[in-house]
Amino acid sequence: MARALWFFTVPDESELPERLQGLFAKARESVGFVPNVFRAYSYRPERLSAWFAHYKQLHEPTPGLDAADREMIAVVVSAYNRCTYCIVSHGHALRVALGGNSEAGVLADHIATNWRHAALDERRTAICAFAEKVTATPWLMDEADLRSLAAVGLSDHEVWDVAEIAAMYNFTNRMAMATGQLPNEEYHHLDRG
Amino acid sequence: MARALWFFTVPDESELPERLQGLFAKARESVGFVPNVFRAYSYRPERLSAWFAHYKQLHEPTPGLDAADREMIAVVVSAYNRCTYCIVSHGHALRVALGGNSEAGVLADHIATNWRHAALDERRTAICAFAEKVTATPWLMDEADLRSLAAVGLSDHEVWDVAEIAAMYNFTNRMAMATGQLPNEEYHHLDRG
Repeated sequence: MARALWFFTVPDESELPERLQGLFAKARESVGFVPNVFRAYSYRPERLSAWFAHYKQLHEPTPGLDAADREMIAVVVSAYNRCTYCIVSHGHALRVALGGNSEAGVLADHIATNWRHAALDERRTAICAFAEKVTATPWLMDEADLRSLAAVGLSDHEVWDVAEIAAMYNFTNRMAMATGQLPNEEYHHLDRG
Repeated sequence: MARALWFFTVPDESELPERLQGLFAKARESVGFVPNVFRAYSYRPERLSAWFAHYKQLHEPTPGLDAADREMIAVVVSAYNRCTYCIVSHGHALRVALGGNSEAGVLADHIATNWRHAALDERRTAICAFAEKVTATPWLMDEADLRSLAAVGLSDHEVWDVAEIAAMYNFTNRMAMATGQLPNEEYHHLDRG
């Protein structure tokens, strides 16, 4: 955890509740290591469990809002908020969801800096614009913002999902930055094709 | 729900899972009505359950961060984000937690506009400054911000709680404003002493 968390001392993995040890094991299996966000949040095991039970629902893909779309929202919000942890970790997840080749890596990098430079289609442009607006100026949101997502083919549930995912990363970005989380180094290099 | 939610059509209360009907009943018992946030979020019952299971943990009072302190963070974040729903509903909760008399009403109103005008003590000033900074410029957070809370007597768990509560209202504010939630009228008038 050197350079990955300020101030707080997290318990050793072996002291965590069994279900969290299972979560860590599953992460090792799927990405090869335990994301620092899990280690950091394990400072408060009950909070990690409750947060993750909500969070994971938001990344279940649907026909009109697939895994890449959902990671794209994560990255757009995190880029606006300048959250190093989330830009790098979800930048990795985004390029995997986009195909994990070098083209996907470039596209994900552009979305992680300024989505306007990523030559996105109309549907993804509408999603990014919504995610950025609800992050930057939530007080200017109105019904037309919701309708702009329906107009590019999202179902009503998917319109809600864009809002909820964007709101969620406004939570996680702040937790990461308030506690001093930095990304595992692996995230920078993996799956670049 | 007139004027309280855009776009989305929520299920009738009788169609909700039993545990949510229980949550609505409990709200009627404690505040006299069902907060519009519950009605709005019941558009996605599983999400409401998951979010609320996390959220409610954050309002459990501790010796160094009591119910009023926690509501104060909610109000400071919501005021910065200009979230009508959360300013009014948690403004009500704050004045109740502060004593529910006319003095408490004035203090809560000041915190809901600009906490600098509320003549807070050093401890509450540090908490409000932290909550506002992590809301407004999360990318400028550093370890000194955490230490500023420890320096006014908060335990390490309570320092974490200030961060997590502030981050949570950055989530709920955005959900409320993205979906068009407005406060139940009762919140404006109740418990003003």
